[in-house]
Amino acid sequence: MSVTLKELAEKTNGIIKGDESCLIEGVSSPDKANKGDLCFITDPKWLAALEGCNASVVVLKDEHKDYFKGTVLVHENPYYVYAVVSQYFSPYPAVERSIHPSAVIHETTMIGNNVSIAANVVIEQNVTLADDCVIGAGSVIGSSSSLGVACQLRANVTLHANTQLGERCIIHSGVVVGDDGFGFAPNNDQWQRIEQMGNVVIGNDVEIGANSTIDRAAINSTVIHNGVKIDNLVQIGHNVIIGENTIIVACCGIGGSTVIGKNCKIGGAVGMAGHLEIADGVMITGMSQVTGSLVKSGASYSSGTGVSETGLWRRNIVRFKQLNEMAKTVKKLDKHMQQIIDKDHGSDS
Amino acid sequence: MSVTLKELAEKTNGIIKGDESCLIEGVSSPDKANKGDLCFITDPKWLAALEGCNASVVVLKDEHKDYFKGTVLVHENPYYVYAVVSQYFSPYPAVERSIHPSAVIHETTMIGNNVSIAANVVIEQNVTLADDCVIGAGSVIGSSSSLGVACQLRANVTLHANTQLGERCIIHSGVVVGDDGFGFAPNNDQWQRIEQMGNVVIGNDVEIGANSTIDRAAINSTVIHNGVKIDNLVQIGHNVIIGENTIIVACCGIGGSTVIGKNCKIGGAVGMAGHLEIADGVMITGMSQVTGSLVKSGASYSSGTGVSETGLWRRNIVRFKQLNEMAKTVKKLDKHMQQIIDKDHGSDS
Amino acid sequence: MSVTLKELAEKTNGIIKGDESCLIEGVSSPDKANKGDLCFITDPKWLAALEGCNASVVVLKDEHKDYFKGTVLVHENPYYVYAVVSQYFSPYPAVERSIHPSAVIHETTMIGNNVSIAANVVIEQNVTLADDCVIGAGSVIGSSSSLGVACQLRANVTLHANTQLGERCIIHSGVVVGDDGFGFAPNNDQWQRIEQMGNVVIGNDVEIGANSTIDRAAINSTVIHNGVKIDNLVQIGHNVIIGENTIIVACCGIGGSTVIGKNCKIGGAVGMAGHLEIADGVMITGMSQVTGSLVKSGASYSSGTGVSETGLWRRNIVRFKQLNEMAKTVKKLDKHMQQIIDKDHGSDS
Repeated sequence: MSVTLKELAEKTNGIIKGDESCLIEGVSSPDKANKGDLCFITDPKWLAALEGCNASVVVLKDEHKDYFKGTVLVHENPYYVYAVVSQYFSPYPAVERSIHPSAVIHETTMIGNNVSIAANVVIEQNVTLADDCVIGAGSVIGSSSSLGVACQLRANVTLHANTQLGERCIIHSGVVVGDDGFGFAPNNDQWQRIEQMGNVVIGNDVEIGANSTIDRAAINSTVIHNGVKIDNLVQIGHNVIIGENTIIVACCGIGGSTVIGKNCKIGGAVGMAGHLEIADGVMITGMSQVTGSLVKSGASYSSGTGVSETGLWRRNIVRFKQLNEMAKTVKKLDKHMQQIIDKDHGSDS
Repeated sequence: MSVTLKELAEKTNGIIKGDESCLIEGVSSPDKANKGDLCFITDPKWLAALEGCNASVVVLKDEHKDYFKGTVLVHENPYYVYAVVSQYFSPYPAVERSIHPSAVIHETTMIGNNVSIAANVVIEQNVTLADDCVIGAGSVIGSSSSLGVACQLRANVTLHANTQLGERCIIHSGVVVGDDGFGFAPNNDQWQRIEQMGNVVIGNDVEIGANSTIDRAAINSTVIHNGVKIDNLVQIGHNVIIGENTIIVACCGIGGSTVIGKNCKIGGAVGMAGHLEIADGVMITGMSQVTGSLVKSGASYSSGTGVSETGLWRRNIVRFKQLNEMAKTVKKLDKHMQQIIDKDHGSDS
Repeated sequence: MSVTLKELAEKTNGIIKGDESCLIEGVSSPDKANKGDLCFITDPKWLAALEGCNASVVVLKDEHKDYFKGTVLVHENPYYVYAVVSQYFSPYPAVERSIHPSAVIHETTMIGNNVSIAANVVIEQNVTLADDCVIGAGSVIGSSSSLGVACQLRANVTLHANTQLGERCIIHSGVVVGDDGFGFAPNNDQWQRIEQMGNVVIGNDVEIGANSTIDRAAINSTVIHNGVKIDNLVQIGHNVIIGENTIIVACCGIGGSTVIGKNCKIGGAVGMAGHLEIADGVMITGMSQVTGSLVKSGASYSSGTGVSETGLWRRNIVRFKQLNEMAKTVKKLDKHMQQIIDKDHGSDS
């Protein structure tokens, strides 16, 4: 696993200052780097660490390019260069493109070229796997599902019937796509199950983190558009629609039928009620409680109380529960004070 | 997949206005419906959409029955009719009732009639599967577990030893039932593991959503009563008891030994501490932080700060942390103001 | 399954008052205990239940030893004795130490003595399993992973490539260890994937609860030190480091690169941002929102609003959103009041 600096520079449109034949054999942090390693610096506070750094090449912004005496790759976005070079250093061994004999594959399955199916996979009827798909051990693919080119299912993934994946999606271990949405009609004190008749449709270049769950629609489709990145342990309810390139950090829960715009950034453990609309480019910080639509494109939203020492917090939440009463008292006081001031001014004049 | 309106009307005690021989071949929303589709309207704001709607039949409340010119099924609870008709339109192909040769089934397993066991299932010793059970691919059933009639385990479910399911339960993909509760005794700075000796007992008609976890009891049983519906990614601690027909939305965590009453509605991402009691019929809104028992039957509880724009929120949480001090100031001001008012009144009189 | 009181007393350094040959055949609560059962009491409020208790032995602190007329095991920490005795009463049948023929085990696997590999396990190349490991059905172990002596993977666990487990770890069902961290570099409006080149390293005696996810590091390792106990549905981001004997309750999410000290107690559903430092011995109560480092060793932290009835809560969160304005008003009022008081004092003097 290695790449020449020349190849990397061409791929990222970076400019080399130094030895372009330099071979990159790993990525490290400036303090731990050895010969063969590439480092990158985005935050100027790390520039001092370049003193005595043993890396073979450091990726720096143009204004910092003289901070390193060795070979430098100059690029406006060093973090992006890091992302590109990381592709050469996968910790996973190259997949043998083969179909393991223990896999249980229905005879109707359409399998493209260069597809890999690991041990103990189960594929039901009428599934399509396009070229270059890699299906991890123990994964189960429900009937009539289709995977576009170069999709990867890691080990122990479950796709339910009629799930559609675009191209180059990565579905991590333990993910469940297309299991039933949570729909029940009240019927006296009991609940009448609503069969979830729709499916899940996922675009290109989507990534879904380990043990996340994406429910099938009640009617029509739950839709995850191109380029969406979802972290681990996220719940996406039925009929949710997520716009292109939106990113959702771990432990979020998105209620049914909520529509999230493009290019949103949703922090970890955010909860959203159902049937909301979130505008394009909205940013929501971690653990926010979203109970209404957020219609202002590009705005940033937050909630929660932050953390305090427990004793102080206990006293403060007692007051939180009296907040409306306190606000009324303040309003009354403000009114009285104004009368006093007015009277004083009157008597002063 | 189809059903006649006559059959549906009989099943739901609805009244047909129009063509009772009408064949229902799908369910849709009023704006997208084609011939063969059934629509239903619960919220009057959708009635306008019936103008020009192409559905073959619309389910309406009696007071709205004249809003649609075509065939109408009159019912007081159109949403319930939708739930009933949805049963005819499962997106899953009919299960072949067979036992896949790749399943590893212990010789002591008791298997009822019409049971289906998919590929790569593993069943340990002394398990009982009653008639009509369907076990999904890759599921693992621990020793001495028993499933009542017509239970369904979707793909990749894990039931641990001694788990008991009633009848007609649906356990979704990735669910783990009966793995160990979280019990450790402090022993100096270390933790001594407490073997979880109990099990999980689940009633009839219970549904547990994808990737949820229900822990076995330390002693005795964790109990999920009849008709409980649990959504995805929910954690139920050891020795929890959940009353009949309670519904728990996704991402909740219920601490050990908490007892929840019947007919409660627990919103998404609610957290409950352990050893609490929640009265029957309690409703808790999403993301609530429940640290004490809620003993008032039928009451509704909430917590959280809601969401604000980030800048405003930052200013407000600073104040939250000063809330007790502010409350004391307000109290002092109120006292002073009262003295001033009293004095003024005194001087006025 | 049984143990003599003599053996238990020796193991725990307890003192027997009564019949040391007494055979313990189970553990129960004082009100439900039968002959053969052991009970234990930590909270004095339960002492009254010993009146008429049928247990064969009760574990009591020295100051309570006369509350039970039968045989007593005197110990300063009865809860610890309970933990020790529970080890004799596992609900799981003894594992047959065998390798199931359906397991798919790469020929390069190094397998120690007395190892058990259940049905449908998949083990990739260059994996090491030390003596006494037990691998549950359907689990998948990625290439070049290693497990120390007596590790247990329950059913349907996934370990990704290069994962290292110490000795005596228990990884519960549905856990995913070592899948990719969530790393993407912005590149115009899209996201460039960052290959996660590191791994996960887990110490001795670590336990990880069902369906939790521990991400591999971007560079270097995500590290879980000796004795850490993690509950169900917890997300640990890439490059997190968790100190010895720290305990993390269910549904927490820990952001990438956060470093948690030793002997911390993290309550359920706590969310931590990334890149934080949490000091040794810190306690954090359930659902806390940790957005900054907590540097005070042994301190206790909390957040949230607690729960109120919904109507009251609605009024209070309106006020929360006006809190900064209200605080300014209070400050102004306080200043005016001080002027009035000063003036009054002036006119009084």
